[in-house]
Amino acid sequence: MLISRRAQDIQESPIRKLKPLADAAQNRGIHIFHLNIGDPDIPTPQPVIEAFHAYHDPILGYGPSQGFEELRQAIADYFKGYGIKLTADNVMITIGGSEAVHFAFSVVADPGGEIIVPEPFYTNYNGFATFADVRLVPLPLKVEDGFRLPPAKQIETLITPRTKAILLCSPNNPTGTVYNEEELQRVVDLVKKHDLFLIGDEVYKEFVYDGLKHKSLLEFKEIEDRVIVVDSISKRFSCCGARIGAVITRNKEVYQAMLKFAQARLCPPSVEQYAALAAYKMGMNYFEPIRQEYQRRRDVLYQGLTSIPGVVLRQPQGAFYVFCRLPVKESEHFARWMLSDFSVNQKTVMVAPGPGFYASPGRGQDEVRIAYVLKEGDLVEAIEILRQGLEKYKKLSV
Amino acid sequence: MLISRRAQDIQESPIRKLKPLADAAQNRGIHIFHLNIGDPDIPTPQPVIEAFHAYHDPILGYGPSQGFEELRQAIADYFKGYGIKLTADNVMITIGGSEAVHFAFSVVADPGGEIIVPEPFYTNYNGFATFADVRLVPLPLKVEDGFRLPPAKQIETLITPRTKAILLCSPNNPTGTVYNEEELQRVVDLVKKHDLFLIGDEVYKEFVYDGLKHKSLLEFKEIEDRVIVVDSISKRFSCCGARIGAVITRNKEVYQAMLKFAQARLCPPSVEQYAALAAYKMGMNYFEPIRQEYQRRRDVLYQGLTSIPGVVLRQPQGAFYVFCRLPVKESEHFARWMLSDFSVNQKTVMVAPGPGFYASPGRGQDEVRIAYVLKEGDLVEAIEILRQGLEKYKKLSV
Repeated sequence: MLISRRAQDIQESPIRKLKPLADAAQNRGIHIFHLNIGDPDIPTPQPVIEAFHAYHDPILGYGPSQGFEELRQAIADYFKGYGIKLTADNVMITIGGSEAVHFAFSVVADPGGEIIVPEPFYTNYNGFATFADVRLVPLPLKVEDGFRLPPAKQIETLITPRTKAILLCSPNNPTGTVYNEEELQRVVDLVKKHDLFLIGDEVYKEFVYDGLKHKSLLEFKEIEDRVIVVDSISKRFSCCGARIGAVITRNKEVYQAMLKFAQARLCPPSVEQYAALAAYKMGMNYFEPIRQEYQRRRDVLYQGLTSIPGVVLRQPQGAFYVFCRLPVKESEHFARWMLSDFSVNQKTVMVAPGPGFYASPGRGQDEVRIAYVLKEGDLVEAIEILRQGLEKYKKLSV
Repeated sequence: MLISRRAQDIQESPIRKLKPLADAAQNRGIHIFHLNIGDPDIPTPQPVIEAFHAYHDPILGYGPSQGFEELRQAIADYFKGYGIKLTADNVMITIGGSEAVHFAFSVVADPGGEIIVPEPFYTNYNGFATFADVRLVPLPLKVEDGFRLPPAKQIETLITPRTKAILLCSPNNPTGTVYNEEELQRVVDLVKKHDLFLIGDEVYKEFVYDGLKHKSLLEFKEIEDRVIVVDSISKRFSCCGARIGAVITRNKEVYQAMLKFAQARLCPPSVEQYAALAAYKMGMNYFEPIRQEYQRRRDVLYQGLTSIPGVVLRQPQGAFYVFCRLPVKESEHFARWMLSDFSVNQKTVMVAPGPGFYASPGRGQDEVRIAYVLKEGDLVEAIEILRQGLEKYKKLSV
């Protein structure tokens, strides 16, 4: 009576696995600055809260498997705001962006199939890859290059007969890199040449700084039927706990297949869909002040981190993460130590160790992901604690 | 650029695939009695609705992957009401019973692994089996036997080295059969003898009639670490759209593995968990009047159906379904015809065709599942329409 191999293999969330240590620290009265998880501190917009208060259906029954039409239409309209033409029938509501990833992986690949993904990458891709029994083939990127995509030839060496798709996340979690049009075109040409699907995780669409524009994979007409985009309201509207995402495709066969996956789990949560609809109804003006807030935080964090000796990073252009090298041998050991053995005035910092963001064994050992989801003042304090922690840790390890 | 084999193979929900015909009928002004889907018409309890109204967290953030502790404790307490001892750490909140099934399948079996399940069975098991790439091995049961389990020897012929688990649903969807202690003991002995897991789908726990008692697989001490129970609030509290279920196990290794699956999708919806907590806080007295209501409906439906010539069924003991043979060759054709070509005073009836509830090709062709989720008066009218439909259909086919 052994549990399955996949259940043994599936990776524990590197973002969440240190939680017991964090709990223990909190029980000792230590305040923790959570730089480990991208749980925004921006209040959930009032119309979302009010949508819960306005709930009045007498029976909380099943909804359509693909989600309520009004919400699918609202998402299509939202994309129209970016000049991207979609219909409600291109949009399927999923239970978080997570389920969208799961559907996308399962529809493009069978067990043993391969999906190429630049690494470091969003750690939960690993979970869904194991769950769906597909193999993520890492395309190794480097902090020194700002995690930019390599030349086409280098990507091409990873393509085999088992390759089914390339997965791009932009703005990138965990690196903060926003791929430019030329980089995306490189990949677009490859998927055309090698007859592949292209999965785009674009849940950080709004979070792009310095006047840059986010280019969606949905804008490349020439591969219209190859593109599957993963979307979510979690970060966009500070609604991580709502679990409302979407998967978007113009490929009817892909949509119909995913609809069958969706039917198996019946429907997404109903009331949370009403809440999501209320969020979209706020219109595009909602985002700008929030974008500005995150850009300020990005600046504070970037300046703070670059001033710490031995920390290597490039300025990120989007999302709300930086992925940087620390002057430590094992970032996981350091992260644990920060929670268990270090504090400044009863405060410490929690970061996400790098290795969990890699599929390649041994990579990311001295790297961490830092989310800037704290107010500027807290962020400044957290960076100072990190600086002192690194200093003290260095002395211990000598 | 082919979609995956599993995406091609995954079964379309037989409960939902006739929906376009139903929509078309409604657009012609036809009222449809929905006997096809187990979406209860009992109003969602007021405390659940009020929990949405009382929502007040400023940020709808991520919750714990295993669900809120208060809710897990409330579910443990609820089982205590049935004399079953559990702790909150035996309970994991899932996104509907659906996800609980998906987790259970994935933790016991790898791709190619086999799970034995009495058929006809809940059609969405098929979806999750394809999704998780495990094979459901059907144990054929018959309407004439009231869909009771066969002798151990007969079940045993299906066990191979690839068998990882047996899955029992009781009270059963779609047959309404409630397995008695002796039948369950037969399976318990088998899983012990052959070193298997035992998955119990017990989401209809409350819906047991004629003074029978539902025996949970969690009550068999001797296989405590082999049991994984799938649970849900959907039917229990008329909350299908909340998507809150649970998976319950005393096996720590299984729990930890499922926690990693759970971490990959981050967390269940937060506000819906508060709503579920409010439901459990109502206490056990909530159920009895509802049980009585369903028992009355069961009686009405059973009497009505047995009075139609050529309809074969046995009296179900639980859940809110009957699975019966109709005097037709192809129940799917009949079900489509009822929606497209038949009505009585602008009203018709929608049933779920039998074949979708089978893994064995060719079985269930002349059978349907009927859900009794309508008020008695509507049920009486629906049966009369079904009777007239069968009469007319018979004449057409001759």
